Order: sequence, then C-alpha cells, then structure tokens
Amino acid sequence: MIVRETPGLLTLFLEIRGSVIRRIYPRVLIVMALSALVVWGHSREPQFIPLVDGAPFSLVGIALSIFLGFRNNACYDRWWEGRKLWGRLLAASRDLARQTMVLARQGGIATGTRSRLVHLNIVFVDELVRHLRYHDRLNQTAEATLSPEEKELLSTTRNPPDYILQLMGETFAQLRCTGSITDIEFSLFDRTLGEMNGVLAGCERLRNTPVPFGYTLLLHRTAYLFCFMLPFGLADVLGALTPIAAGVVAYTFFGLDALGDELEAPFGTLPNDLPIAAIAKSIEISLRQALGEADLPEVPKPVDTILL
Amino acid sequence: MIVRETPGLLTLFLEIRGSVIRRIYPRVLIVMALSALVVWGHSREPQFIPLVDGAPFSLVGIALSIFLGFRNNACYDRWWEGRKLWGRLLAASRDLARQTMVLARQGGIATGTRSRLVHLNIVFVDELVRHLRYHDRLNQTAEATLSPEEKELLSTTRNPPDYILQLMGETFAQLRCTGSITDIEFSLFDRTLGEMNGVLAGCERLRNTPVPFGYTLLLHRTAYLFCFMLPFGLADVLGALTPIAAGVVAYTFFGLDALGDELEAPFGTLPNDLPIAAIAKSIEISLRQALGEADLPEVPKPVDTILL
Amino acid sequence: MIVRETPGLLTLFLEIRGSVIRRIYPRVLIVMALSALVVWGHSREPQFIPLVDGAPFSLVGIALSIFLGFRNNACYDRWWEGRKLWGRLLAASRDLARQTMVLARQGGIATGTRSRLVHLNIVFVDELVRHLRYHDRLNQTAEATLSPEEKELLSTTRNPPDYILQLMGETFAQLRCTGSITDIEFSLFDRTLGEMNGVLAGCERLRNTPVPFGYTLLLHRTAYLFCFMLPFGLADVLGALTPIAAGVVAYTFFGLDALGDELEAPFGTLPNDLPIAAIAKSIEISLRQALGEADLPEVPKPVDTILL
Amino acid sequence: MIVRETPGLLTLFLEIRGSVIRRIYPRVLIVMALSALVVWGHSREPQFIPLVDGAPFSLVGIALSIFLGFRNNACYDRWWEGRKLWGRLLAASRDLARQTMVLARQGGIATGTRSRLVHLNIVFVDELVRHLRYHDRLNQTAEATLSPEEKELLSTTRNPPDYILQLMGETFAQLRCTGSITDIEFSLFDRTLGEMNGVLAGCERLRNTPVPFGYTLLLHRTAYLFCFMLPFGLADVLGALTPIAAGVVAYTFFGLDALGDELEAPFGTLPNDLPIAAIAKSIEISLRQALGEADLPEVPKPVDTILL
Amino acid sequence: MIVRETPGLLTLFLEIRGSVIRRIYPRVLIVMALSALVVWGHSREPQFIPLVDGAPFSLVGIALSIFLGFRNNACYDRWWEGRKLWGRLLAASRDLARQTMVLARQGGIATGTRSRLVHLNIVFVDELVRHLRYHDRLNQTAEATLSPEEKELLSTTRNPPDYILQLMGETFAQLRCTGSITDIEFSLFDRTLGEMNGVLAGCERLRNTPVPFGYTLLLHRTAYLFCFMLPFGLADVLGALTPIAAGVVAYTFFGLDALGDELEAPFGTLPNDLPIAAIAKSIEISLRQALGEADLPEVPKPVDTILL
Repeated sequence: MIVRETPGLLTLFLEIRGSVIRRIYPRVLIVMALSALVVWGHSREPQFIPLVDGAPFSLVGIALSIFLGFRNNACYDRWWEGRKLWGRLLAASRDLARQTMVLARQGGIATGTRSRLVHLNIVFVDELVRHLRYHDRLNQTAEATLSPEEKELLSTTRNPPDYILQLMGETFAQLRCTGSITDIEFSLFDRTLGEMNGVLAGCERLRNTPVPFGYTLLLHRTAYLFCFMLPFGLADVLGALTPIAAGVVAYTFFGLDALGDELEAPFGTLPNDLPIAAIAKSIEISLRQALGEADLPEVPKPVDTILL
Repeated sequence: MIVRETPGLLTLFLEIRGSVIRRIYPRVLIVMALSALVVWGHSREPQFIPLVDGAPFSLVGIALSIFLGFRNNACYDRWWEGRKLWGRLLAASRDLARQTMVLARQGGIATGTRSRLVHLNIVFVDELVRHLRYHDRLNQTAEATLSPEEKELLSTTRNPPDYILQLMGETFAQLRCTGSITDIEFSLFDRTLGEMNGVLAGCERLRNTPVPFGYTLLLHRTAYLFCFMLPFGLADVLGALTPIAAGVVAYTFFGLDALGDELEAPFGTLPNDLPIAAIAKSIEISLRQALGEADLPEVPKPVDTILL
Repeated sequence: MIVRETPGLLTLFLEIRGSVIRRIYPRVLIVMALSALVVWGHSREPQFIPLVDGAPFSLVGIALSIFLGFRNNACYDRWWEGRKLWGRLLAASRDLARQTMVLARQGGIATGTRSRLVHLNIVFVDELVRHLRYHDRLNQTAEATLSPEEKELLSTTRNPPDYILQLMGETFAQLRCTGSITDIEFSLFDRTLGEMNGVLAGCERLRNTPVPFGYTLLLHRTAYLFCFMLPFGLADVLGALTPIAAGVVAYTFFGLDALGDELEAPFGTLPNDLPIAAIAKSIEISLRQALGEADLPEVPKPVDTILL
Repeated sequence: MIVRETPGLLTLFLEIRGSVIRRIYPRVLIVMALSALVVWGHSREPQFIPLVDGAPFSLVGIALSIFLGFRNNACYDRWWEGRKLWGRLLAASRDLARQTMVLARQGGIATGTRSRLVHLNIVFVDELVRHLRYHDRLNQTAEATLSPEEKELLSTTRNPPDYILQLMGETFAQLRCTGSITDIEFSLFDRTLGEMNGVLAGCERLRNTPVPFGYTLLLHRTAYLFCFMLPFGLADVLGALTPIAAGVVAYTFFGLDALGDELEAPFGTLPNDLPIAAIAKSIEISLRQALGEADLPEVPKPVDTILL
Repeated sequence: MIVRETPGLLTLFLEIRGSVIRRIYPRVLIVMALSALVVWGHSREPQFIPLVDGAPFSLVGIALSIFLGFRNNACYDRWWEGRKLWGRLLAASRDLARQTMVLARQGGIATGTRSRLVHLNIVFVDELVRHLRYHDRLNQTAEATLSPEEKELLSTTRNPPDYILQLMGETFAQLRCTGSITDIEFSLFDRTLGEMNGVLAGCERLRNTPVPFGYTLLLHRTAYLFCFMLPFGLADVLGALTPIAAGVVAYTFFGLDALGDELEAPFGTLPNDLPIAAIAKSIEISLRQALGEADLPEVPKPVDTILL
C-alpha cells in the first residue's frame, strides 16, 4: 500500500513511485511511436497508409471503457474484500484475547493457557502472511511458542495456518473434555475460531481464484487492438498532434488494465497491494498489549512510501 | 478454471486455450465475410447495396454495450457467488472437524464417531460435485464409509447430498438422544450442518435458475442484428478496412456474450468454470489431515492449464 | 421460468415462446409504421415533415440506455432476491426436518409431533405460494394435517402463512412449557421458525412494494417519446431503411422495459417469473423423503418450456 | 407509495398523480420558453444570439447521465434499505409474538405479561412512525397500554421509540431477575429486541444522514447549467423543433433529479415515499391476531392511489 | 455533514458553503484562462495555436466519466459504510445498556457495575472519535470514570479505544469468574462487546486504507490532462464561448474528483464528512437517559450549517 499525501499539481505529473507508469511505459511509447510513424508515412505515401474516420473508434472506445470499468470494479471489490477479511481477523483476534480472560478463574495453569492461545493466535496470523505470500522463514513467535514436534509438523503440513488453528481447537477441546470450561464457553471460543477459519478460507479463495482468464484475455486483446489501431483514426483530424492524443488514451486504458491486474491479487507485494505484513504486526502489538507484555514490536513504517 | 500466467504481448494474440475464440470464430468469420461482400457489392452495384451513415450504429452500439455490461456483471456475480459458496463449504468442513474433537471425551467409540462424521463430510462434498455435474460414478470414500443399506438408499434418493446430510444429522441426533452430548454441543454441530445445508441450497439455486431467458434472448438477438448490420454502416467511412473493424467489434461483443454464458452456469466443465472437483479434493486433504491420516490424496494439478 | 437450451442461430430469431415480443410487438409495429409514414411523407411534402439531425437523439438515447440499464438492474435484483428467499426457505425447511429428529428421544408421541411439524412446514410453503399468487384452492396436505377448527381459522385469517407459522410456534411453545425440550433446543427450533418468518416478510415486501411508480412512469414516457421521435432523426441519413433501424431500436428499448416489468414482480405467473410452485413441490419432496415417506409427489416438469 | 396498475398508452401521457411533473413543470417550461426565445432571437439578430455545434453538449450530457444515474442508484438504495428495515421490523415483531408464547407456562400473570409486551411492541412501531415523520398525536394503543408515569416520561424523552424499547427490556430483565425465565430464554428475547433496536438505529441513520450535500449541489448545478445552455446547442440543427427536444431532455433530467430527492428521504410523505404508516398498521393487525384479539383495525387503503 | 434545506434556484448558484467550489476554483479559473488564451492566440497566430476536431475529446471525456463515476461510487460506499458502522455502534451501545439491566438482581454493587460499564461505553465512543480524528484532549466522562492508573495506561497505550474495550471485557470476565453472571449472560455481553470491537476494526480499516493510490493518481492525471487539452478541441466550434464551456466541464470533473477525495476519508473534518462527534454525543445522551441521569448534554447543533 502506498502511504502518502495526495501530491500537488507539479509533483502529480512528475511522481513515478506508486504509479503504474513504470510497468506500462513501453506499451505507451510503442503506441506513440506508431502514431508518429502513421502520420509521417501518410504524409509521404498517402495511398499506402490510409486514414479513416474516427467514428467507429468512438463506438469501440466507449464499449471498451464500459467493459474495463466493469473489470476494474470486480478487481477493486476483490482488493477491498481482502482488506475486509484482514479487518475481521484483527477483530477476531482481539475477541479471542478478551474472551480468554475468563480462563483466569482456573488459576495459574489457565493463565498459561491463555498466554499460549494468544501466542498461537499471533503465529496463526504470521503463518497466514507466509501462506499468502509464499515466504519461507519461520517467525520468532512460532519458534518460542511451538514445541519441537509441532514445529516439525508445521514444516510438513500442506496448510500451515490451518494446522495452527487445529492446535488452538485442540486446546479448547481439551479444556472442554476436562470440564475446565462449560459448553457455552466452548461454543463462544469455537465461534471465534470459526471466524478465523472463515478468514483463512476467504483469503485462500481470493488467492486461488482470479477473475476468469477468458475475461482478462478478451479485455487485454481488445485494449491492445484498439490502441494500436487508434493512430489511423486520429491522424486524419489531429495531424501532428496524434502521438500526444494516442499517448494519453493509451496511458489511461493500459493504466487501468494494469491497475486491475495489481488489485486482482491483493495479497501480493506490488505497490498497490494490501500491507498484510504490516497489519499482522499491528495485530501482534494489539495482542501482546492485551497480555500486558511490555516489550512490544515496532509499528511498521512505510519504506519509500510503500507499506507491505 | 484456467491456471496460467498473464501471457506476454505475442502469446497474448496467439493464445487459443482459455479464449472464447474457439466457440465464437464461426460467427466472427461470418461477420467479416459479410463485410467483405458488402464492400465488394457496393463498389459494383452501389444502387443495390446502400451504405448508410454510422451515427445510428453508435447509438445502438453504446446501448448494447451498457446492456451487455449489465448481463456480464450478473453472470460474473453468479460465478463469484458459486466460488464463495465453495469457500464457505471448505470453512464449514474444517469447522466440523475441529468441533468434533470435543467428542473425544467419550472414549474410543466417539473417536470412531468423529472419524465417521468427517468421512461422511468428505462423501457429502463429493456427492455435491456429482450432483452439480450430473456424474455417475460413486466415490471411493463413499464405498468405504457407507453401509450397504445406505449405499442402496443413496442410489435411489433424488438428492444424494441432502441424504448424506441427513445421515450426519441422524448421528448427532442419536448422540443427543443418548445424552452423549449436551444441547449446546448439539446446537453447535447443528449450526455447522445448517451452514452446509445452506451451501447445498445455494448451489442448487445457481444450477437450477439461470439468468431470465427473455433477457438472454433479447441480448443475443440485438447482438446478432447489430453485428450483421454493422458492415453497412462502416463501409462508407472505412472502405476496404471494414472487415477488420467489423471483426474486432464482433469479436468483442460475441466474446463477452459467450463468456457470460460460460460464467452463468459456474459449476459446469467449460474452461472458465469453477474447479469444484479440485476444491472438493482440497477439502478432502484438509479433513484427512485433521484426522491425522497419513495417506493423503494428491493435490489436483491443472491439465493443459485447465483445472476442473 | 423458461427451461430450455440456448437456441441456435436460426431458432434464435424465430423463437417466440419466452420472448417479450408477444407483449411489445404492437408498439414496435407502430414505430415501424410511423417510420414508413415519415419517410413517405417527407419525400412528398418535405416542407411539412421536417427531418432533423440525429445528434440530439444520440444524447437522449444514451441517457435513456443508462437509466433503463439502472431500472433493469433494480428489477433483476428483486427477481434474484426473490429466488434467494426461496432458496433460504428450502434450506430452513430441511434444517427443521433435521433438527426435529432430536424429538425422537420422547418416544412415539414426539415422533407424531415431528411428523405434524414437518407436515405443517409443507402446508406453510404451499400457503405461501397461494398467498403470493392470490390462489384459492386449499392444498391436499393442509386437508390432511389441519384440524377442522384450524381449517376454519385458516380460511378467515388475513395472512394464512403467518397463521401456519403460529401453529408451529405454538407446538414448540407447548413442548417447552411441558418441559419436553430444553430452552436451548427451543431456541434452536425458534431460530429456524424465525428464518421462515424472515422469508415470509421478505416475500411480502417484494410483492407489496414495487419499484417507485414515479420512476417507472418517467422511464416509460421517455422511452415512448424517444421511439416515436426517432424516425424524424433517422430518416435523413437512413432513408428507406429507417423503419428497420427504428424497429431494432424500439425492439431493444421496449423489450428491456417489458422485461423489467416482468422481473419486477418475481412471484407472478408470466414466463420469466420464478417457478415458486415448482420449488414448493421440491421442498415437499425433500421433506417427505426426510420423514421416510414412500409415496412422493412427482417432480414438476415444465409445460411447453415454462415452469411455474 | 403509489398503488396502481401500469397505465395504458393514453393514460401514460395524461397521468399526473404520482408523476414528478407537478414539481418540475416550472423548470421545464422555463427551458422551453428559453428555447423559443433563442430560436426567435437568432432568426432576428443572429450576431447577438450565437448558435454553437452540439458536440460539446453530447459530452456533458452523457457525463451528466452517468453521474445522475449514480446518484439515483444511491437514492434508490436508501429507499429500498428503508423498506428492508421495515420488513425486518415486521418479522421481528412476529418473532416476539411467537417467542413470548413460552411465557404461558407461568400462568395468568405471564399471559398478562405477554399481552403487555406485544402491546408495547405495537406502541414501539407507532412511535417509530411518529419519530420518523415528526408527528405529534399520541396513539390509541399507547393510551391504553402505558401507565400515566410512562406517558409522562414518553412525552419528555428525546427519543420515544428508544424509551419504549427500554420499557420492553426492563420487563424482560425483571422476568430474568425473578427467575421467571432462564438465561437462554432471556437471550432469545434480547436478540429480538436487539433486532428492533437495529431497525431503529437504521431508520435514524437514513433520516439524519442524507446523500452528501456537496454531491447534490454539484449535480443540481450541472443539470441546470446543462439544460439552460442546451437550446443554444440544439437550435442550429433542430430549428423550430428546439423547444420540444429541449423540453424532453429537461423533463428527463429534472425528473430524475427530483425523483432522487424524493427517494433520498424514504420516510417522508411525498407520493413515492414508503407507506410506513400502512406497514405499521399491518404489523398491528398481525400482532393483535397473534394475541387472538377479535376487534382488528382496518387494512389501510390507498387514498387517491397513494398509500402513506 | 452539511445540514440544510435544498436551496432554491437563485441560492443554488450563489451558495458557496458546502460546495467544493472553494477548493477547486483555482483549477477551474486556470482552465478558463487557458481557454481564453487559446481562442485569442488562435485568432492572432493560427499557425502556432492549432485547433483540432472535438471527436477524440468525446471519447476520452466519456471514458473519464465512466472511470470517475466508478471512483465516486467507491468513495461514496466508503462514506456510507462509515455511517453504517456508527449506526451499529449506536445500536450496540443501546443493546449493552439494555442487557446490563439484568445485573440489577445482584443488588447495589451490581447497579454500580452497570453504571460503570455504561460510562465506559461513553468513554469508548469518545475515545474512538479522538482516535479517528487524532485529537488530544481527554474527555470529561473519562476523567470521572477511570481510575488514575487507568488514565495513566490510557495515555500510554497505542490504541485507546481498544484499551477501553479491554477494561469492559475485564469487568465482565470478573463477573463471570466470581459467578455473578451465568455463562449465557457472559456470552450475551461478550457478543455486544464483539460488535463494538467489529466497529472499531471497521473504522480503523476505513481510516488506514484509502482507495489504491495508483487509481487516484491515474484519475487525477487524466482529469488534468483532459481539462487542459479541452480548450484546443472546443475552440474550433465554440469560438468565444470556449471559456464558459470549458469552465462548466472543468467544474464538473474537478468537482467530482474533489468530492471523491472528501468522501474517501469519511471521518475527517471537511464539510461533507461524517459528523461522528455529534453522533458520539447522541449516543452519550441515549446512554445517560437509559441510566436515568437527569443532567443530559446538549444535542449538538450545526455551526454555520456544518455538523461535525
């Protein structure tokens, strides 16, 4: 996520960080070069480089705008749903920290149980980040919280966050089986675990199921075809200004298309993706504070305006 | 579902797999041939092949874009709702596996009960795939889990997944009637079964109720009429380039229309449909792992970039 | 609901069943006749039948498309919400059949109670169809399930489905008052009744509150004005082809408008309306099967491709 | 709410009731008069009344359509959310009437309690109508149900419906404190009160927070500017027909804008607003019928096709 | 939030308060000045200041309208979601005040507990306002309710509202551990705290995650480019009227863009932002009234039509 103020007029046009221009400028330049070529070619050999009326382009351009707008809407909704899932995860984690306070009536052992559960919660959140971003390094809290056997199992399981949730579920099931908690309390804790489970399933859904490929392909193709044919339609009325106009149109259409790609997979590490590592750190701070721990991690800061 | 990287510029235009071009190229070619015929005919017999101004086509084309965009939106929402239902099913299945751990306090018999319940859950998911895709072959897990009488009933019932849910419900009702679980625990399990039941009802809704036929018919007709009349409107200003322009427009409009058809019924086996068989396999892996089983099925791999 | 395959190219244009063409063809023909009259009149008396430039028509046509698209979206959402309500009703009915299995611990009396409750559920669904479609005939299951006094009350009450829900609620309240079920079990059953109650309230909302009349009126008027003025704008550039073009535009706009009317009241008996009688029959089959009854009703079949 | 059949072709154009034409005709007439003036002025003094090409108007007109469409969508969503809230209120009221049947086990006192609770429910609904519409007269049921002290407090409180909900909450809290109901039953009743509380908060939200004023202002201004400048753009191509065309455009744009205003505040008493007084009466009938009362109020009838 | 009547025709155009015109007039004036310069320059040196056909501008303008409309929609949704969150907070606060009435059975001590809990609720709401608006001053109710140690902790914690929720959670956990409330009652209170927790997480989500920066940047750039190039496209057909037309277009596009910025961060203190301080005061009034307190704060009044 890019963290910065809306820039002023001058920086607005000079700003490159956070813009999709880095990724689309080759395509925009090709369109502009093609435009220049068409204008030059037509002035020398009008019979070989035909120019045509722009009306059909208006039709295709507006249709393309409508369909691009629709795809962008779908991608933005995915991105925002991803953010909502992590907001629910934050809330569910705080819920668990609050609810487990009731275990204190069991004395010191249960206090240890609460601490372990909240630490497992931190591990779950960290593993979810690793799972969604395909990282490899094990987290410090996991090192301190899990037993050697659990670490072994964690490293071999196909779905680490799911495994951590199972560990939490086992703890509550044991508390229930030994009668340490009532069935109502068990169902209270279970609902919160279910909420985390729902977040996990939602994140996997967003990561594993992109917008239908046929749709992306059709829009990419139409956008390319439109932008590459545009100079022939503009040159007649715009003359030497064609490269500029075609460049603006290409920048807008390719830019929206590229932004859609970025938002479609919201858990990646591109500039406009969600800062799930930073959110995970916030959850950890919130949970450690709830446990009364003093040595809290740093609040994550954006690096070069980008927060991951 | 098509699983692949977004292609580069060259492959973008040469790619056929996953594109709707396979299904719409006859129509696109007809429009292009008709365009060529109109241009040729007009140059020979202008009085018989009239050309007209393109302005009315702009109006119809933009209106058609708006309505096609709306239908595509509705179809995409159906597709995404289908995916969400299967995400809920994954979460509910993991919930049940976690919640049934509490049965362990009942000793060995209940452990067997838990195992049977989780296996029934796997059978439910498999039967749901069969039910939605009209398959015939009985699943291995069903063979191993169900008694002969149950298999018999399963083969005669009109709604197999509903029957499996009933079996699970009966198990919990018996546990409750014998006092093995408290009423709170029963209601906890029942809510999870209710969630699966809701997924079943949602999937049946999506499968049985397409977008209103009158709507599809109207849009198909308008799209055909528009594309077949387009050459007469384009030939005047585009001349010999008419077939290319008409082809691009026809590709976009027929393509979106065909994609809408594909997404409308998201549980089918077309390339852009949902990989529900693969999701079912993932659920099975997750559940077997929760039971501590060692012999896990393979993670499903896409065949020729397509995951079913 | 229309149940049929997407037609091929030829039948696509010849198909009349399920099309809105039956209801709008007079209007479309009037527009076409008016177009012919305008063209003919202008060729004879140009000073009396003025033709105008089409540009203002583009503006109005696109604005109309946007607003029609919006109204169609709202109507489709109503139709789909109606379908979702009936999907929830199916799920809630199956939930009740599953949950009431727990009554079996009470012995034979309670088994009778379960049977009566599930039969009341069938009656509720049937009465809901009658209520939404203003039918008069009492259903067979109601005849067999209700006592004479209850039938009497049913026939005089202002809201029959609500009355049936009260009967079910009374049964559960009695079971609770006599201590046959625990408070948790009571709240479990009550939540399922509450779900059915929510479906009832939702269906009444859709039936009683159409899209604001002012909106419908404004769009109808604008669509008529636009289509009746269109020939004057098209005749100049299209000449003798005006009636065809005006017919296509009128077909699209009137057709969308008429489809919106059909979807706006989704519980009616027009071809594109929801098949709630058939869904009710499916629920009955599912419930009777859950009770283990052998003599199941027929699955409803579409009559002449239309399922009601 | 306007209750009537979709009118036929003739009445469609003559109908005034329910149309926004009553409120916008001065503006439309001004635009038409201005158009006539522009045409006449231009024919006499072309150098003072310049006419311009219509192309820039198309751009502004389409942009305006898109933004008006968006605002109308937002206003319609508010209207429909208001209707959904009242549907939830109907369902919650019926839920409470059903759930309180369980109090019957407490004997005659509790039956009185149930009756008082359901009557308080009726008062709550009536007070909500008064609260949303700023009425002053106290309702008959309130007269009969509340004690003098309660009436006194009701008249001084800042939020009457909230106060009635508190009275209901107090009754349940007393039943719980005296042990007349279990904690589960208390939480069941409490959830239903919470639902009513949510409806109250939702209605207050819709009433107190209109669509952002800056948005309304921007759209009003653009719509006025556009319609007042339109004659200059149309006169060139339409000549003497300009007043008619400008009138149609102004009718559509002003009409949609005015309808948006009407739907934005759905609890008012304009023709297209929600008939909350009638819905309240329906709830009262449903609740009195559930209590077995014989003397039911009349079903509200539309007055001159308008139901309030 | 701006609280005022929709203005009449004259005030509509003269009104400045609440309009975005204050923030965008420099940009609009620049566009108008540039237009005048283009017209003047072209009349003197046509070969240096080329004018071009407006057709390409239509295409870009309509595309820009669609994308701006989409961004405005997203921003409006954020604003409305913020309002919904505060509506839920109002409802949850009233729920807690109602539910805690059940504590009265514990005698005087518990009455004090209820009072403290409701006051903590008021503190939570106030702290949420401070948290979202980065204020510094501690609230009066907090002064009176919190102990010195709690105030100390509140001033050092990183998330004050979260800390207050923890205090409330601790109170309920103690009541549960000492057996003063049953597990069901605990879970009832816990659910209400969970609702407040969800509101907190939702508000933090809206505050910390703006619409993707790349999107805002792309739209700002395209809007500037379009408006600065527009005079060259309009001057040809509009001549001396170009500055007026360009000014209207620039006002609409810049205005919508600026409104989007305002709605995007709905908890700020700009004129169109949500009046969360006023809502917080309403919640306080409602809660104090529920406690029976006599000395209620004033209902917040808009200052110069603006309510914060």
